[in-house]
Amino acid sequence: MCVDPAGHTDLALALDDHAAYRRELVEAGLLVPTAARGLYGRSGAFDRLCEAFDDYATREAAAGYEVLRFSPLIHRGDYAKIDHIRNFPDLMGSVHTFTGGDAEHMAMLEKFEAGEDWTRDLRPAEVMLIPAICYPLYPTVAGMLPEGGSRYDLLGFAFRHEPSDDPARMQVFRQREFVRLGTPEDAIAHRDEWLARGEAMLARVGLEPRRVVANDPFFGRGGKLMKATQREQELKYELVVPIVPGEKPTAVASSNYHIDHFGLAFGIRSAGGAVAHSACIGFGLERIALALLGTHGFDPKGWPREARDVLALD
Amino acid sequence: MCVDPAGHTDLALALDDHAAYRRELVEAGLLVPTAARGLYGRSGAFDRLCEAFDDYATREAAAGYEVLRFSPLIHRGDYAKIDHIRNFPDLMGSVHTFTGGDAEHMAMLEKFEAGEDWTRDLRPAEVMLIPAICYPLYPTVAGMLPEGGSRYDLLGFAFRHEPSDDPARMQVFRQREFVRLGTPEDAIAHRDEWLARGEAMLARVGLEPRRVVANDPFFGRGGKLMKATQREQELKYELVVPIVPGEKPTAVASSNYHIDHFGLAFGIRSAGGAVAHSACIGFGLERIALALLGTHGFDPKGWPREARDVLALD
Repeated sequence: MCVDPAGHTDLALALDDHAAYRRELVEAGLLVPTAARGLYGRSGAFDRLCEAFDDYATREAAAGYEVLRFSPLIHRGDYAKIDHIRNFPDLMGSVHTFTGGDAEHMAMLEKFEAGEDWTRDLRPAEVMLIPAICYPLYPTVAGMLPEGGSRYDLLGFAFRHEPSDDPARMQVFRQREFVRLGTPEDAIAHRDEWLARGEAMLARVGLEPRRVVANDPFFGRGGKLMKATQREQELKYELVVPIVPGEKPTAVASSNYHIDHFGLAFGIRSAGGAVAHSACIGFGLERIALALLGTHGFDPKGWPREARDVLALD
Repeated sequence: MCVDPAGHTDLALALDDHAAYRRELVEAGLLVPTAARGLYGRSGAFDRLCEAFDDYATREAAAGYEVLRFSPLIHRGDYAKIDHIRNFPDLMGSVHTFTGGDAEHMAMLEKFEAGEDWTRDLRPAEVMLIPAICYPLYPTVAGMLPEGGSRYDLLGFAFRHEPSDDPARMQVFRQREFVRLGTPEDAIAHRDEWLARGEAMLARVGLEPRRVVANDPFFGRGGKLMKATQREQELKYELVVPIVPGEKPTAVASSNYHIDHFGLAFGIRSAGGAVAHSACIGFGLERIALALLGTHGFDPKGWPREARDVLALD
């Protein structure tokens, strides 16, 4: 999710655009930079836009979704079942902590004070950061689904280690996700229904979404085949918009059809007994806020009437 | 923040209470357990209570706070200035990632598949998890404060590595914080004002808060002196309530007067030019939701009228 579609040509121009827009956002106080690239404080005004789109999605979603909220962490054992270490090791966030006693603590502090690498004294904690807010869901769903499958409504922060000065590429960001588990037909219907709904939602707030077949940034030489297969099978679609008018389009929502990946990994079966398939759509709330601000300007009072109405900004 | 006050005597009883309450919460679907202790999915109903108290705090806070929202990560260099590695290494969350190429990836995967420790192949990322939501604030405030100091309104997730089956001791949880930076008098006035306000707020939702002098769980032998000093100087107060009636009291809000700790670490000066002092109060939203559910029952429709009114639950 939230991956740029392939085919960006003018990288130098793109970098200039990013830098200018980032500077404007910081000068307006909408984003507060930190020492880490891609890590910001967000102003109340910025966050209200994320929440306004989130509430809009709540109003647009049909009934029948089970609401679950996960934190940005997952058990290390569950992470190990998901193949992320194979496919996206460079985006990983493994959480490490100190488990020693007084003597080990003194030894670690000596390294810390000497400017040496003290982190080798840590041990992996039971948890990892999550790359998508639907990852913690699947391990909780083991077993047989009801007839018609199950629908979930998720919201939370995801982490990807990709330090960048592009304000649209944050290391940690919110996803609003709608997930369906069931038969292959259930999953594909969910994907198609939500891509159409997402396109209409983005158009109503005055953005101009395009639907594109996309691929995740699979790691390394081996990842090339994965990328090609994912595109060939059309497993990933993105809704892309320019964050700033005239700029290259960036994904603000994306949908993945996982086939039986999570069903197999976590022993989830559809009502008929077959391994469950799944599909999700995720809206990147910070990216949508950035696109709204970049497209309509920094003062929502001057935004198009329909955008203000559907976002309930009055 | 969110530390139990000292003086719990009957640990065995407490553990039984926790286990029973945890079971009830899981059976009611309010919390969804995961493979990691102290890490849950939260139901929509549970999260609405957290948000209802959060909104209540928004209504109660006087105007004049700058709203900032931080993610649960902080730059490693800023973390190093905060003394957390000295005082709370066992609660730390250091984020590590993979930075190698194809060959290193193959080597790491071999270890992963053989069940060996593959995490030694990772490198520390630029970021660490935060133990309190005000930590990312201070590095962004460097310089001279305006006359009267600065006030901040914060909300976000904090992480502490303390795996537990006590539902009130989650590894990751939300804090709503109000912070003041300024002169010592500014900071102490903020602490006193918010402790009184917090007590009144908790009483109006039908909890019975007590204000206690407390200490943070400073690590190891050396930490004993820190604990004693913190208590002696009354730098930390907690508002404690029983999560379940009759159970030992647990902190649901706490206030720290940091003296000039953050001012010194990040070069923050009050208008007069002296190193800034700071104080914060943090409300633990999950703990407050747990105390409301434990005190008034799982159906908010049956809660006391005043609690429903101030939380705007109708």
